[in-house]
Amino acid sequence: MKIITMGEIMLRLMTPGFRRIEQADHFDAIYDGDEAIVAASLARFGMEVEYVTKLPDNALGETCLQQLRAQGVGCRHAARGPGRLGINFYETGVAMRPPRVIYDRAGSAFALAQPEDFDFDAIFEGADWFHFAGITPAVSPQTASLTRAAVECARRHGVTVSCDLNYRGKLWTPQQAQAFMKSIMGQVDVCIGNEEDAEKCLGLKPAGTDVYASRLDLDGYRSIFRKMKELYGFRYIGCTLRESYSASDNGWSVLCYDGQEFAQSRHYDIRLVDRGGGGASFAAGFIYGILRGLPLSQIAEFAGAASALKHTVYGGMNRVTVEEVWELAGGDASGRVQR
Amino acid sequence: MKIITMGEIMLRLMTPGFRRIEQADHFDAIYDGDEAIVAASLARFGMEVEYVTKLPDNALGETCLQQLRAQGVGCRHAARGPGRLGINFYETGVAMRPPRVIYDRAGSAFALAQPEDFDFDAIFEGADWFHFAGITPAVSPQTASLTRAAVECARRHGVTVSCDLNYRGKLWTPQQAQAFMKSIMGQVDVCIGNEEDAEKCLGLKPAGTDVYASRLDLDGYRSIFRKMKELYGFRYIGCTLRESYSASDNGWSVLCYDGQEFAQSRHYDIRLVDRGGGGASFAAGFIYGILRGLPLSQIAEFAGAASALKHTVYGGMNRVTVEEVWELAGGDASGRVQR
Amino acid sequence: MKIITMGEIMLRLMTPGFRRIEQADHFDAIYDGDEAIVAASLARFGMEVEYVTKLPDNALGETCLQQLRAQGVGCRHAARGPGRLGINFYETGVAMRPPRVIYDRAGSAFALAQPEDFDFDAIFEGADWFHFAGITPAVSPQTASLTRAAVECARRHGVTVSCDLNYRGKLWTPQQAQAFMKSIMGQVDVCIGNEEDAEKCLGLKPAGTDVYASRLDLDGYRSIFRKMKELYGFRYIGCTLRESYSASDNGWSVLCYDGQEFAQSRHYDIRLVDRGGGGASFAAGFIYGILRGLPLSQIAEFAGAASALKHTVYGGMNRVTVEEVWELAGGDASGRVQR
Amino acid sequence: MKIITMGEIMLRLMTPGFRRIEQADHFDAIYDGDEAIVAASLARFGMEVEYVTKLPDNALGETCLQQLRAQGVGCRHAARGPGRLGINFYETGVAMRPPRVIYDRAGSAFALAQPEDFDFDAIFEGADWFHFAGITPAVSPQTASLTRAAVECARRHGVTVSCDLNYRGKLWTPQQAQAFMKSIMGQVDVCIGNEEDAEKCLGLKPAGTDVYASRLDLDGYRSIFRKMKELYGFRYIGCTLRESYSASDNGWSVLCYDGQEFAQSRHYDIRLVDRGGGGASFAAGFIYGILRGLPLSQIAEFAGAASALKHTVYGGMNRVTVEEVWELAGGDASGRVQR
Amino acid sequence: MKIITMGEIMLRLMTPGFRRIEQADHFDAIYDGDEAIVAASLARFGMEVEYVTKLPDNALGETCLQQLRAQGVGCRHAARGPGRLGINFYETGVAMRPPRVIYDRAGSAFALAQPEDFDFDAIFEGADWFHFAGITPAVSPQTASLTRAAVECARRHGVTVSCDLNYRGKLWTPQQAQAFMKSIMGQVDVCIGNEEDAEKCLGLKPAGTDVYASRLDLDGYRSIFRKMKELYGFRYIGCTLRESYSASDNGWSVLCYDGQEFAQSRHYDIRLVDRGGGGASFAAGFIYGILRGLPLSQIAEFAGAASALKHTVYGGMNRVTVEEVWELAGGDASGRVQR
Amino acid sequence: MKIITMGEIMLRLMTPGFRRIEQADHFDAIYDGDEAIVAASLARFGMEVEYVTKLPDNALGETCLQQLRAQGVGCRHAARGPGRLGINFYETGVAMRPPRVIYDRAGSAFALAQPEDFDFDAIFEGADWFHFAGITPAVSPQTASLTRAAVECARRHGVTVSCDLNYRGKLWTPQQAQAFMKSIMGQVDVCIGNEEDAEKCLGLKPAGTDVYASRLDLDGYRSIFRKMKELYGFRYIGCTLRESYSASDNGWSVLCYDGQEFAQSRHYDIRLVDRGGGGASFAAGFIYGILRGLPLSQIAEFAGAASALKHTVYGGMNRVTVEEVWELAGGDASGRVQR
Repeated sequence: MKIITMGEIMLRLMTPGFRRIEQADHFDAIYDGDEAIVAASLARFGMEVEYVTKLPDNALGETCLQQLRAQGVGCRHAARGPGRLGINFYETGVAMRPPRVIYDRAGSAFALAQPEDFDFDAIFEGADWFHFAGITPAVSPQTASLTRAAVECARRHGVTVSCDLNYRGKLWTPQQAQAFMKSIMGQVDVCIGNEEDAEKCLGLKPAGTDVYASRLDLDGYRSIFRKMKELYGFRYIGCTLRESYSASDNGWSVLCYDGQEFAQSRHYDIRLVDRGGGGASFAAGFIYGILRGLPLSQIAEFAGAASALKHTVYGGMNRVTVEEVWELAGGDASGRVQR
Repeated sequence: MKIITMGEIMLRLMTPGFRRIEQADHFDAIYDGDEAIVAASLARFGMEVEYVTKLPDNALGETCLQQLRAQGVGCRHAARGPGRLGINFYETGVAMRPPRVIYDRAGSAFALAQPEDFDFDAIFEGADWFHFAGITPAVSPQTASLTRAAVECARRHGVTVSCDLNYRGKLWTPQQAQAFMKSIMGQVDVCIGNEEDAEKCLGLKPAGTDVYASRLDLDGYRSIFRKMKELYGFRYIGCTLRESYSASDNGWSVLCYDGQEFAQSRHYDIRLVDRGGGGASFAAGFIYGILRGLPLSQIAEFAGAASALKHTVYGGMNRVTVEEVWELAGGDASGRVQR
Repeated sequence: MKIITMGEIMLRLMTPGFRRIEQADHFDAIYDGDEAIVAASLARFGMEVEYVTKLPDNALGETCLQQLRAQGVGCRHAARGPGRLGINFYETGVAMRPPRVIYDRAGSAFALAQPEDFDFDAIFEGADWFHFAGITPAVSPQTASLTRAAVECARRHGVTVSCDLNYRGKLWTPQQAQAFMKSIMGQVDVCIGNEEDAEKCLGLKPAGTDVYASRLDLDGYRSIFRKMKELYGFRYIGCTLRESYSASDNGWSVLCYDGQEFAQSRHYDIRLVDRGGGGASFAAGFIYGILRGLPLSQIAEFAGAASALKHTVYGGMNRVTVEEVWELAGGDASGRVQR
Repeated sequence: MKIITMGEIMLRLMTPGFRRIEQADHFDAIYDGDEAIVAASLARFGMEVEYVTKLPDNALGETCLQQLRAQGVGCRHAARGPGRLGINFYETGVAMRPPRVIYDRAGSAFALAQPEDFDFDAIFEGADWFHFAGITPAVSPQTASLTRAAVECARRHGVTVSCDLNYRGKLWTPQQAQAFMKSIMGQVDVCIGNEEDAEKCLGLKPAGTDVYASRLDLDGYRSIFRKMKELYGFRYIGCTLRESYSASDNGWSVLCYDGQEFAQSRHYDIRLVDRGGGGASFAAGFIYGILRGLPLSQIAEFAGAASALKHTVYGGMNRVTVEEVWELAGGDASGRVQR
Repeated sequence: MKIITMGEIMLRLMTPGFRRIEQADHFDAIYDGDEAIVAASLARFGMEVEYVTKLPDNALGETCLQQLRAQGVGCRHAARGPGRLGINFYETGVAMRPPRVIYDRAGSAFALAQPEDFDFDAIFEGADWFHFAGITPAVSPQTASLTRAAVECARRHGVTVSCDLNYRGKLWTPQQAQAFMKSIMGQVDVCIGNEEDAEKCLGLKPAGTDVYASRLDLDGYRSIFRKMKELYGFRYIGCTLRESYSASDNGWSVLCYDGQEFAQSRHYDIRLVDRGGGGASFAAGFIYGILRGLPLSQIAEFAGAASALKHTVYGGMNRVTVEEVWELAGGDASGRVQR
Repeated sequence: MKIITMGEIMLRLMTPGFRRIEQADHFDAIYDGDEAIVAASLARFGMEVEYVTKLPDNALGETCLQQLRAQGVGCRHAARGPGRLGINFYETGVAMRPPRVIYDRAGSAFALAQPEDFDFDAIFEGADWFHFAGITPAVSPQTASLTRAAVECARRHGVTVSCDLNYRGKLWTPQQAQAFMKSIMGQVDVCIGNEEDAEKCLGLKPAGTDVYASRLDLDGYRSIFRKMKELYGFRYIGCTLRESYSASDNGWSVLCYDGQEFAQSRHYDIRLVDRGGGGASFAAGFIYGILRGLPLSQIAEFAGAASALKHTVYGGMNRVTVEEVWELAGGDASGRVQR
């Protein structure tokens, strides 16, 4: 199976040991990004993956390539050129103190990328799946065009298309998001997104009910999913169900829909190591399950366990094996050691 | 608003990563002290603050000055001279293993300070508030005299005086504490202290009831507060209500009293990063609320949220903003990230 | 009191800060091993202890000696020679992600040790107690012979013998374990081991009942203990009762039996720093209590508190004092600081 | 003496321990900038200093303020606003491998600063000296305007003006530099710059001689200095004389000129800790010497020793005392310890 | 150009900061090996490289793959299986204290590799070059057979073969080395090795002269090279010329021979960061130069500069670019920064 | 051979990585002291050593014991009691920036020690050698008494006595030093000290010659040694000859005298890792050589190589083996690796 993902990989600069930015005599360096995490997960799960992006022509760009290649992700189509590497200063939260993020990503090489940087026909030749997140078209007008070009080319090559709506209020407005997303959803086969994404990106607010009153009003999710299916004909829809007990502990499960049935994974209580990449790790597990042809309940358990595990791994990339995911999905969450 | 605090700032040498002292190949260095923390908090909250102390005439003393100035605390009146910098070896606790402290503070420059090291009239000229903790007079006979001199001078200049009783059994006996405290309480406007402080520093043990049976017997606290008000005419009394579930997790709220009403802040469950400075951060929030003229319930919520947040911050100083405090006081303790 | 323990000390290479092995740019180095931990605990508790082992003749072997001597453990009888130091790569678990262990211990100097490396008569001259764990005979045929030789010599010198069954499926099969253990249990006075150990090492599976259905079916434990006593005449039997809530949090208590009475220690909920050495720390506390002639309930409380504390200490060795153990055993698990 | 400096402070992200960028699992964080270093030095030397800049309105901007205040630098006139904090990725060189720098400073809050962000009349009221470096007008058209406005206002207030030409080929061309610099030199009293600066910024290339043939052709420097004096009437001119033996070891001395005499400091061979801030530390020493009214030879020795010492200090700021500078200037470079 | 290298990659565990093994509370982890370094260099220089090895089937083996792939090295033919990862404990030397190495490599997966683990015909199909070092056949009888099989298959496919003699006294005796090497040299086109290698591996000791009297008796090297050419018909011969001033500073140059001319690179004085991989980095530069068809003097300068630079890079892999090598080879060793 | 040393062991708190005290977010912790280093060296060289001291009754005192025992030093006679552990803040120097030391050792448990803390008769029973440094009597009047008591008891038991004069101007004046030292030299067999020590401690200033004009005027040293022998009848005299090129690089050799011959060791140029303990390591090598009955030239080479090596070892204790010392003394200072 050959999979293409496209997006931006950034440098995440994290304060160490719960220190605040003003206390950091150094920043831990993580290179990640939504579609890069999906790519790495799928490569780890044994699939052939190419990651499409544009990187600055300096040592930071080279480092991104090394990080991706290390995970087994192909970078044949990664362009290089002027512009900087986007940065995300990140102060890990704890207890009731939330993480603090300073986005410093304007002017990145990816934001400045042009369609002619990529040969989409070559990219999608022989591919089975294309995945992107809503962050990608939100980065800049150029990347919105890129995204559209990629989706269209993918369709021409008969490639399945998945989109993680992933609304980011710091990058675009609901109006901008809907203008783009509504126009492209018809070409998407598999959609990932929760109620907030549905409202912000697709304008789907269930009438007569406040689904936000309870974070886990599954009926609200189900009705949104059915509506999304109805409007755009998605083959699969999925989302994660995060419960923010605090910045240190979260509840977690996922919900999957194949247009007929719903399947919810088991529920996990997680002591967080790094919550970054939780959503992307779900996307990767979801795609893996679909590509493997698993029954829906198994897809949900696999994608749920994979994304839950991610929260215990430092950095955005989900550094686990298929065997570890199945072991957890199989029910042993006791954290016992084998000797 | 111009605020004066006076006390000792020390070097806290902490073992890293839950290691015990015998395992530490290095010690993390923190510079803090009760009134220094109050000063830093109030400066961060936008007030003009001067910190009165005496520091050794070496690089450690210079470092203390840098740490204070960095927080916006004025050090115009900080004296320098012979003596050492007090040290506090600190082994962070975890679960049911308590923190272990080795006090190594005898002979500090502050302990040896003389009244002539300070020009109190210049210090209190134009000031609005003076704050000290019970640790300060307990350090040495010299610092007891200094404290008395400072309080008297503050009164002469019409400055509001607050005292955090903060009984320290390693520095003086209840007899010594009461001898000093009872004689000076009449000059104090705002008193901070819990039942134990009231007993040890003021000899106020409620008859016929064991208030210690339940850590959070609020009636006990209220009766003590009323008694303190009656005896010394305090304008405000406040204290923190810590529940030591373990060395890793605490419950937290605060109780404030304006002589008529009581207000208790909401309750927080905290994963501890550093419990040092929790009490001083309450004092700072309490003073801030009073100086801002907030209603009592808002004072309690602000001081409660500020001091709860402190427990998630490394080091004694409460490195938070007024906005962050209000955000938490407003009720969102979910630790969610904004992107 | 003079105590002898014999076994293998290894280099544990731990990934730092919850990183996975592939992310580790360094490994934290810990030197520990079951009987070495018992030896260190008993030396810290004030007893005279000699540790019998064989170490490689290089700087790693020298480092093991330094680590042991630092704890007050005598190494007069530690042999040196060819072979390597066994290594244990250890990835700390978190939440529902279990610790991951890569054993790399084949070919160690200890595995290659010969009886003539040790003068057992000199070793046991004047000794009061000999302790070994089931790991030791499992390491290699040579160490099985060594163990037998040691036990027999200990008996000849009238030394009390204790054995922690400690079954390790990566080192031998139940058949191998039973062949050795059944033949030597008659010479053992004090046996440590839970139901799984009893089944794997002694073939004692209680008929007609699934004791594994509930992790803490104390009746199952009690019936096994009675059976073990009946068969081998042990003076004391003890075991730990771990509840794996997750890789981050465990429940903990211990069960002791003197052939007549059972005593269970109080129960602890533990935030784990390092779970390594928990069992060995129980063994040490158990032996200490018996040697001190404490009543059974006190033995259980001491051994329970000692081994619970271990989980909050980095590294396998239980770096606590007798006073700290009694303080916790006395009931204060609040983790409060004394100032 | 009250001194004003104006410029940009940036975040320098350094790879640790001679690692290359691709190897860095973290970056050490340094906050520095040419005029900020001058300000910090002069404040450490006991002068009153205000630093004029514009910082982003986030935690990184706040951190810059803390770093400056810690050094005793006044930040009353530091503006805050939109834009990012400029970043400088820095890979320390060693032996014949040069340092590698990735500038990532476009779009900074300072680059976007407007004249109305600053009240120059208030800034220069009562000031004695104004210092800026050639980097500041090179950052953006806005900062060039700011620089001009500042110099003109300073002149109106009778303030001495010093400029460190400090040509940066990554920020502007010689044409741009000359257009600005030539037009403003008439208002500058004290000029710092070497032959390359004189050529790039002032177009002063000595005819008929290749001064670059020998790095330390002092006659070339002297003739350039005389020419600069002739053209612009500078009261003082100074420069540093760096000999790059390798990225690990440098030779160092400085040359000062008062329009009549030349004075060269003694020569130092330096094992480099951090070469950043060497030039700015010379500027600070030069200004200090002039303001203190020292004889020219003493100015040179003080400024030479101060800037040589800087190379042994981590970070750009010259964390030394006047006493340490004089001690070295007095001739003891043996690095002996006093006990 | 497609290049194949074959050998063992190991885990190097280094003590941090000049600490001795007994002082190391952690070990820095480096994954390197002679042919792996050659492979990484050539991949960085833009060539297609496949690395043939056998790795243990655990997370350490996976980490090796990630490290290699990150450098752009293909691992399609890397086998996995039982056995451990070889370890090399390494204590960095300083001044006159030499590095201390503890080899712990017996029983590695590579040492146990079988010919059937590799499909050599597939490996050499379309390849241009095959490189191995003398370490590889020295590891075990199995790897000696593997090496022979690989060389023979390479020849059948018309692939150029290079060998770095690289004698290791800890792995085999001169007798063993000569038995293998003499029998295979006829199939080698390019030989790398100095006088000691020539003596130990090929038995070529120049009669009547003590070439060791002077480390850099170039005549001795030249006569040995001519003899080697005469006996085995090598197309190229090369070696490095290290001068061990101390464990901190080395002199460095290289000597190349094309059967007719000799070319020596310029000489470098190096402050060492990590001397590991110096020889392999020369081999890579030498191969690169030959494959690029450079004149001999340019080959020597490129290979000399590349391998000199390696000493300033942490870890065995030569993390430099072709541009950096040429920049140094072009003569600028001043270590100046470009801004 | 059984050796006794007596003195104070302190906590050295070092700033990491050339940072200044104000930059240190942590301090590296070293436990050392002159006689403790001598004790550790001799124990490593295979001798039986007991270290006499008094330590505080807290975890820091316990840590000192662990550090000493780890080196094989007996601590049977180490007393415990009130008082603190002396501290030495240490900022490593570099190039021409000297180390900066802040002594914080007043009030230590050792300074407060009383004769009745030690049973000197038991201590010296069966001993062969007693060593102390001039620091020990300088610490406090109590320790001066202790020293006298120890020396007298040692003489009564026929124990050889050695003294390293080691004048410390921060602890006593020349007058105080001479009053003590002159009165006790008659009981000393082996004296270590250079010209400065001879002047400050013994009042021996060679008339008519300025021996300080040249640091290495060996004639001056020889005449002083002869004079010392004449006055006090020492059997051996020795000293180190340090050349402070800079705080990073030193020259080093040693001079030994047996009352008839002089022997100077070979000369070393040293890149410093940690200069602490250089003198004490010489003392240990000197004592070792004498006790082993080596010829004077061998004593000098051994003691010179041992103390030179110390400078390359982190921490004060000389963590080397007899074999390593002889290897260097034998002439190989090239720092080559053996593989």
